[in-house]
Amino acid sequence: MAGVHAGIKRNPAKEDVSLIVADGPAVAAGVYTQNLVYAAPVALDRARTPADNIRCVAVNSGNANACTGERGLKDAHEMARLASAAVGAAAEQALVMSTGIIGEFLPMSKIAAGIAAASERLGSDEGSFLSAARGLLTTDKGVKVVSGAYDLGGSEIRIAGMAKGAGMIGPRMATMLGVMLTDAGLTPADAQAALRDAVEDSFNCISVEGHMSTNDTVLLLASGAAGDKPLSGDDLTAFRTALREQAIELAKMIPDDGEGATHLMVIDVVGAQTRADAHRIARTIADSALVKTAIHGGDPNWGRIVSAAGYAGVAFDPAGVDLHINDFQLYKAGAPQPFNAADVSASMRNNRDTRIVLSLSEGDARVRFWSSDLTVEYVKFNSDYHT
Amino acid sequence: MAGVHAGIKRNPAKEDVSLIVADGPAVAAGVYTQNLVYAAPVALDRARTPADNIRCVAVNSGNANACTGERGLKDAHEMARLASAAVGAAAEQALVMSTGIIGEFLPMSKIAAGIAAASERLGSDEGSFLSAARGLLTTDKGVKVVSGAYDLGGSEIRIAGMAKGAGMIGPRMATMLGVMLTDAGLTPADAQAALRDAVEDSFNCISVEGHMSTNDTVLLLASGAAGDKPLSGDDLTAFRTALREQAIELAKMIPDDGEGATHLMVIDVVGAQTRADAHRIARTIADSALVKTAIHGGDPNWGRIVSAAGYAGVAFDPAGVDLHINDFQLYKAGAPQPFNAADVSASMRNNRDTRIVLSLSEGDARVRFWSSDLTVEYVKFNSDYHT
Repeated sequence: MAGVHAGIKRNPAKEDVSLIVADGPAVAAGVYTQNLVYAAPVALDRARTPADNIRCVAVNSGNANACTGERGLKDAHEMARLASAAVGAAAEQALVMSTGIIGEFLPMSKIAAGIAAASERLGSDEGSFLSAARGLLTTDKGVKVVSGAYDLGGSEIRIAGMAKGAGMIGPRMATMLGVMLTDAGLTPADAQAALRDAVEDSFNCISVEGHMSTNDTVLLLASGAAGDKPLSGDDLTAFRTALREQAIELAKMIPDDGEGATHLMVIDVVGAQTRADAHRIARTIADSALVKTAIHGGDPNWGRIVSAAGYAGVAFDPAGVDLHINDFQLYKAGAPQPFNAADVSASMRNNRDTRIVLSLSEGDARVRFWSSDLTVEYVKFNSDYHT
Repeated sequence: MAGVHAGIKRNPAKEDVSLIVADGPAVAAGVYTQNLVYAAPVALDRARTPADNIRCVAVNSGNANACTGERGLKDAHEMARLASAAVGAAAEQALVMSTGIIGEFLPMSKIAAGIAAASERLGSDEGSFLSAARGLLTTDKGVKVVSGAYDLGGSEIRIAGMAKGAGMIGPRMATMLGVMLTDAGLTPADAQAALRDAVEDSFNCISVEGHMSTNDTVLLLASGAAGDKPLSGDDLTAFRTALREQAIELAKMIPDDGEGATHLMVIDVVGAQTRADAHRIARTIADSALVKTAIHGGDPNWGRIVSAAGYAGVAFDPAGVDLHINDFQLYKAGAPQPFNAADVSASMRNNRDTRIVLSLSEGDARVRFWSSDLTVEYVKFNSDYHT
């Protein structure tokens, strides 16, 4: 892996092109934005995954190559060709990811120079991993990475991941950019199923302001270097659990680093009839500007939370609703509950995580969702930012 | 009509209880919030409309009587009983509306005193109309009223309306509080149909932050004083058009006065397959924090608008999309269009109204939607506000 500065971002200290290279053909799976207006790199990767022959992923930040029409698609293919050529692979063995400004064409000479420079600095040490992870970032305050090791199928298997994203975060079927890496052996079908499952509880359960990006992409590369054959049975199940946990850790970092965020909202919706119902209610609460500003202000304004649940488009009995914030019960069986507002407010102010538990009486389904609060800094940042 | 200060709001200069009284039984229609968690006054009015015997509407601001369970419903009925008794009507001849804080019980002795005081100050002059309109307000900067006169069915018919709302505005089937008054003769069924139709293009096409309230209510009272019999045929059609136009004028005032707003976004989505498709896309653009902050900053950031359309959940061909902001074309047939960013930005900064036209190639359906921009003041206001 390697990340280099190629001049796409203005600041010369910031990496903007990364290469992630497998020693041999790797199994690759991908999950992508459901936005109808999707970027050229998403179109390329979607057509190439799942696969069993991927050698590298080229990433650039500072330019999303989105809403760029036919020329954008041509540029994405050229970026993939440059990357595979630099690592001695065939053109179709590369995937690409882009993030940054929408509607401008990729600066292809900078991309080419960046890929060439990165290919000469490839390494497998922590520094290389971190420089590649930095090459994904845009408005992120810092790098977002996870890693873990697991004993599976008689071998030590490693999982590592990197992601970016702090704004335009409202993924439905995927998120901004994320790459999960493992040396486990997986069939393409198992890799795709494991990734889709992991994304469902992680990148699909986060938002910053709820605006779904054009470039959301999460990739999984599995080299198989840790064992002789693909995982199966209990080992595969254990791998899927490990991947899911790593994906959740990685995904949570995104709203925690939401533009201007001062709180990470952790929203549990429990007692729903279906997981989809719970998810829809949690997302509606998470994306309400009134809930987000209340959390920012340390205000236990439960009316904003309960009323958001009420317009989520999910049927439930309002008289069966309980609400807790940071373990204080504020609402019980559809009626206000006496509580010490100063204590709840102090708890909200003194903790970065604000834990909201909305309990329904409809069934056993539940979901956990993470989101950012809404602050003056978010508004300043996104008003002052100019195309 | 009359509005008085009854001590629900702290500021003694601000009206917080209003009475609107018809000289005789009036036809009444209502359209209400679709929030599952709806307030007690909504429950009462919904059960009583459409009707042909309504004598009065009692309104209070400062307390929404929402999420207050059985006791809240009892309080709403007592409020209606007090109002009808004060004007010499039967208990079931009153409607009620409440707006303000969620989750606190109505201060019934203040409500009773306010209704008594208002019933002694009833008038039909402009001052009385405006004091009643002020009694609806919460965070509004000023009164929101409309009026017009029309020659219909051989008589001069008048339509007047009042509304409130600046935050928690994301109505689906109705809006915050609105009352439309007319001396036209209408059957209850025609009144209900005319109101529902008018709301569809007015209060259903506005948002501030997209959070649907628990108390949204629009009422229409038709006294019939202007003619001998209910309007029909072309006169009824002309009345419906007039009511729709007045409702649109009134509804626009709400996002224009959105909490902290510096711009009114006027969003036209045209060329959609169905009106519902156009509406869904317009609302998604209107409610995107990234679009709202771009408008606030005077930034012609068309990528945020086009990408919001892409996640609205409506199928369309991205290659058939055009976008104009304030008559500048920024995007054509799915590809960036060269434009002078400084000129567009200046136009956005120098006009309170920012006009966005998103054109699809799917059909002939269209919608116009109005929304507020998102500012530092909105966030400060809603973070500092404390329950």
